[in-house]
Amino acid sequence: MSRAWNFSAGPAALAEAVLKRAQAEMLDWNGSGASVMELSHRGKRFMELAAATERRLRRLLDIPSNYKVLFLQGGATQHFAQIPMNLAPEGGTADYIVTGIFSKKAASEAAFHVDARVAATSESTDFLTLPPRPAWRLNPQASYVHYTPNETIRGLEFHEIPDVGDVPLVADMSSNILGAPLDVSRFGMIYAGAQKNIGPSGLVLMIVRDDLLARPPRPIAKILRYAEQAANDSMLNTPNTWGWYLAGLTFEWIEQEGGLAAMAERNARKSAMVYDTIDGSNGFYRNDVERAARSRMNASFVLHDGALDSMFLAESEAAGFIGLKGHKAVGGMRASLYNAVSPAAVEALVQFMRDFAARHG
Amino acid sequence: MSRAWNFSAGPAALAEAVLKRAQAEMLDWNGSGASVMELSHRGKRFMELAAATERRLRRLLDIPSNYKVLFLQGGATQHFAQIPMNLAPEGGTADYIVTGIFSKKAASEAAFHVDARVAATSESTDFLTLPPRPAWRLNPQASYVHYTPNETIRGLEFHEIPDVGDVPLVADMSSNILGAPLDVSRFGMIYAGAQKNIGPSGLVLMIVRDDLLARPPRPIAKILRYAEQAANDSMLNTPNTWGWYLAGLTFEWIEQEGGLAAMAERNARKSAMVYDTIDGSNGFYRNDVERAARSRMNASFVLHDGALDSMFLAESEAAGFIGLKGHKAVGGMRASLYNAVSPAAVEALVQFMRDFAARHG
Repeated sequence: MSRAWNFSAGPAALAEAVLKRAQAEMLDWNGSGASVMELSHRGKRFMELAAATERRLRRLLDIPSNYKVLFLQGGATQHFAQIPMNLAPEGGTADYIVTGIFSKKAASEAAFHVDARVAATSESTDFLTLPPRPAWRLNPQASYVHYTPNETIRGLEFHEIPDVGDVPLVADMSSNILGAPLDVSRFGMIYAGAQKNIGPSGLVLMIVRDDLLARPPRPIAKILRYAEQAANDSMLNTPNTWGWYLAGLTFEWIEQEGGLAAMAERNARKSAMVYDTIDGSNGFYRNDVERAARSRMNASFVLHDGALDSMFLAESEAAGFIGLKGHKAVGGMRASLYNAVSPAAVEALVQFMRDFAARHG
Repeated sequence: MSRAWNFSAGPAALAEAVLKRAQAEMLDWNGSGASVMELSHRGKRFMELAAATERRLRRLLDIPSNYKVLFLQGGATQHFAQIPMNLAPEGGTADYIVTGIFSKKAASEAAFHVDARVAATSESTDFLTLPPRPAWRLNPQASYVHYTPNETIRGLEFHEIPDVGDVPLVADMSSNILGAPLDVSRFGMIYAGAQKNIGPSGLVLMIVRDDLLARPPRPIAKILRYAEQAANDSMLNTPNTWGWYLAGLTFEWIEQEGGLAAMAERNARKSAMVYDTIDGSNGFYRNDVERAARSRMNASFVLHDGALDSMFLAESEAAGFIGLKGHKAVGGMRASLYNAVSPAAVEALVQFMRDFAARHG
């Protein structure tokens, strides 16, 4: 069996140790005589898994006790719609910071359910920069401020948590959660689709402060209310048990690897390798994102001659790399460098990039 | 490794052949050098998997061309809420046939989004019967009629598709889809949580007639609109790729086993074995569901002396059976007999039941 060097943006590489464990336990998990997928979520074994997984996440992120942890479904996109239903009253307003395609989509989906105001945007720079904090026009009456700490398509990342005063800060951390230590207490709500740094697609992790769950509910079905899910330990209906299980294995793997500080150090090193290769290529490769906001999770680059794109992709694939094609909205290349992407994979990538440039430069 | 005899109600047993295939392909699916979970849903390989999976389902169920097939998230419960948002106008009405805890919940969740009228209910018999069709008070102006062909908790099943005239019939088939051949053309919409007869939890299969997708949309986010999902081949956002993959493996397994006619024959045989054992136990075991509506998927039973329940569960577990405890709402026992539960497992169960009765009768 040969494993590819996987730089997919999401669904993305999982830790090989996690996959091997899932493989070994596929027909008989935890002595149950069944796969974890074949067992009731309300049975003793799965309930213990769920509780242990939450404890592990709380340890990793040092989550304060006044925050609930939820394991939901629907992808982050569904929560673009559900968040305003839960956090804002009908006719209420919310502020959106738009720094890329995902935060723009978050605002446009929310707009069906709240007066979603764009308080700041970097669309005029084609999302290659972050709008400077002093230029944000925040509304102190907003129900919340929403932003996307890492935009995967360009690879544009906030390296500081913005101060938005007393209005709760809501963050779509799909593509950078668990990539580094985080001060959860700065947020009202953090949510993340699992398929980048947590596990398989089809699972959404949510960390939400108690007072936001106490906001008066709109007349929406119970299944759409976060407070109901919190009161039912994310089991108002059958959860994605496989996703929850793999998230637990991933959290365990992160702990074994040294926790979030170790991840942050590794991710900084990995992304520096790629950016150094780009910047040292004498213009063969280029990344136009504002230096201070380059993402540690997604390094995008274009080739000096777009005609080489298809050759880069074909040769990289032949050399055992997958997932390097940039998002269709921007083209070019993108190397996603999530936790499960090993330094060895990045070593191989930058070596390939240098060789390719030497051959075609 | 020893596999248990798994009678769980859901998440439920998967075919062992499916699990073994998933196990073998865990680190390298389809020559990709990655798990299917680690690949983009928009990549060529996964797109082919998605298309092949849909084709296989269309063959199995002989789905007419004017029906779309969707692979969604959220569990059936989320769609209790989403169906009225999509099929009824604001201020519209819909009829609900209430024959158990799930259809009752479907109506109560829908009631936040439509005038959900109970057109018939068997709650007065504690859901042990089906309300006779002539007593249904259907509203010809309703946007749809919703029913639950199989109620898993009691094990109460419609063995005929009810005629509801020109109003579209909507069915939550979570617990009996693919258990037998089906005339899809009788329905406006069929939906099913995957975790009983399709695959792991976290996936919802939906089969919906084109004209229902053309109903004018409410002002809800795009991600909540079925028409948008249909227009985007269920990839408006990242789908549950692992669930989709396992559904495909399960459809393939069903075809290899002889298709839905073979499943129906096997399920009839399996359920007859359990009901015959109950009925032939001289009252040691009892099933109080109306004979004509006994479920082929979930056979519930109580012991003549409730004090024996815990002993039955402990001894059955020691003998290698799991998932036999009845739903907390009704107590007693329940053997779920979905497609993946082998006749050999049912043989073992009825033998255990007879032995237990002999020892404690």
